[in-house]
Amino acid sequence: MPQSKEIHLASRPTGRPTKDNFTLVEVDVPSPSEGQLLIKNHYMSVDPYMRGRMRDAKSYIPPFQVGQVLEGGAVGEVIESNLEGFDVGDFVFNMQGWREYFLSDGKGLRKVDPSIAPLSAHLGVLGMPGITAYAGLFEVGELKEGEQVFVSGAAGAVGSLVGQFAKLKGCYVAGSAGSEKKITFLKETLGFDAAFNYKEGNLHEQIKKVCPKGIDVYFENVGGPMLEAVLLQMNNFGRIPVCGMISQYNATEPTPGPSTIAALIPKRIKMQGFISFDHHHLMKDFTRDVGGWLKDGKLHVEETIVEGIEQAADAFLGLFDGTNTGKMIVKLV
Amino acid sequence: MPQSKEIHLASRPTGRPTKDNFTLVEVDVPSPSEGQLLIKNHYMSVDPYMRGRMRDAKSYIPPFQVGQVLEGGAVGEVIESNLEGFDVGDFVFNMQGWREYFLSDGKGLRKVDPSIAPLSAHLGVLGMPGITAYAGLFEVGELKEGEQVFVSGAAGAVGSLVGQFAKLKGCYVAGSAGSEKKITFLKETLGFDAAFNYKEGNLHEQIKKVCPKGIDVYFENVGGPMLEAVLLQMNNFGRIPVCGMISQYNATEPTPGPSTIAALIPKRIKMQGFISFDHHHLMKDFTRDVGGWLKDGKLHVEETIVEGIEQAADAFLGLFDGTNTGKMIVKLV
Repeated sequence: MPQSKEIHLASRPTGRPTKDNFTLVEVDVPSPSEGQLLIKNHYMSVDPYMRGRMRDAKSYIPPFQVGQVLEGGAVGEVIESNLEGFDVGDFVFNMQGWREYFLSDGKGLRKVDPSIAPLSAHLGVLGMPGITAYAGLFEVGELKEGEQVFVSGAAGAVGSLVGQFAKLKGCYVAGSAGSEKKITFLKETLGFDAAFNYKEGNLHEQIKKVCPKGIDVYFENVGGPMLEAVLLQMNNFGRIPVCGMISQYNATEPTPGPSTIAALIPKRIKMQGFISFDHHHLMKDFTRDVGGWLKDGKLHVEETIVEGIEQAADAFLGLFDGTNTGKMIVKLV
Repeated sequence: MPQSKEIHLASRPTGRPTKDNFTLVEVDVPSPSEGQLLIKNHYMSVDPYMRGRMRDAKSYIPPFQVGQVLEGGAVGEVIESNLEGFDVGDFVFNMQGWREYFLSDGKGLRKVDPSIAPLSAHLGVLGMPGITAYAGLFEVGELKEGEQVFVSGAAGAVGSLVGQFAKLKGCYVAGSAGSEKKITFLKETLGFDAAFNYKEGNLHEQIKKVCPKGIDVYFENVGGPMLEAVLLQMNNFGRIPVCGMISQYNATEPTPGPSTIAALIPKRIKMQGFISFDHHHLMKDFTRDVGGWLKDGKLHVEETIVEGIEQAADAFLGLFDGTNTGKMIVKLV
């Protein structure tokens, strides 16, 4: 009988996750009953938000269960169909990542057209990271043409899109990332106006240098000392869409908050947390704008692709070391 | 020659201000030239925001100058008029507080009608604290009927209005203050649903107890550990209008920020600093609503009045000890 590999949560991580928190399990590829599909995933996503689901805590999405298969965005192909509306060979976006094969009754699937964009794009620029960057920058961040934008985690899946979207709106864009190679990538490949390596030098000094006219929109991906320093360089009426605080996700002790938070008052800063799935009303605008930019060759889509489900846990762990540039993707087929 | 007393900034405070930072100076009462008024202040305001102006730092309002008279809201009477449009006996709101007499060319004065409300009301419910509470709660805080509201510094000039405005909008209202007497005042005089003394017990436990259904709008007056604890009890899509952080104004070391700030993301919280003078477009609504409530006897106006300009510095210093209930006012006449 053919086998399907999948990754289970072996135990809940304390602090930084390790490979011991994951188990590779082989199961029989199941047969679809009437009304079911058998789907084979081609690509799966690993994302920083998954760290939150490994915690046994109430949040906007239920926690992963120990001993159960993990979940996440994926793009798969219909291999067998006993369900009207789906044909063998159809490609579908699904939330049953971290596994090779699965059965579906069709709920929660979204067909994707492989002729429009590479399949993996639905996990990045055309998927959750894309809508996250779009909603955060334009709706939560209320970005206006010509403003000063700073994005942390700028070479990541979301950050690399934030910077490009803002440039396309005629803004000045600066960013931070964790290596010289990424800084070069931001400036030379993505067209950032300025960028710096947050691991070197004084944060506040570096921010002042790359954003000499202050910051109107700070797209927050990292939290910690970066937020503290950025607040000092924000302009009056600035906005901080808070997408993530990856520097704090593995903390075992409470992370000190920004000592500069009182700057919110004299500068009248708005700081707002958001999650992409609250912003699906933007989908039409998103598809028009981002689909259009993509078609016109105006967006550089960067992916770090690792091959084989055996590498999925390492790919996930790598997010916290910054081993990815652009979207981290696991290719399963 | 008649004398006018005024208070000068003797030196910039380091940390908590002391009486040594102030000097009482006597000057001759000047004579108005053509186009000028001589005004005698009846009431002057002391407000926490003035601590910020004692710092030599760029902000939304220029710093006070050492050796110069302080400034702030006041209500005075026209004693001599050489300026058309102003008659002897007119009462005017002005920003020339901290002094008994002054000359004016009429700029920045606003006539007030003593038959509508007591003069001191223009420094409180009908003045800056009133519009601050109104704008923060309704515009920045986007308060909806029936929501759960928590306000810190609840017995202060702004907080005492915030709680009453929210009750008038059909909300559940809880607050914190610094003495048993104030807690009784909040519950029995102002009609708060619940209140606690922040100096006793565990903040997070107390907040959970007074806000069992969570918090939709947290009106922030104090900062520090209160904000850190409140973030844990905020509801999804909650709003935090940030009016002040009085607990941090005298800090000589950076105050630790809220270690719970990452809660902004899963709870999609909006936190926004604001200053009343950005919200003067609300003046018509404010006058209709707050003027109406006042006229209908629906608002309790609490003031702590000290007499004589000699007491002004102590009144100001008392703000940081919570010696006031409601608006702290200095009566000069």
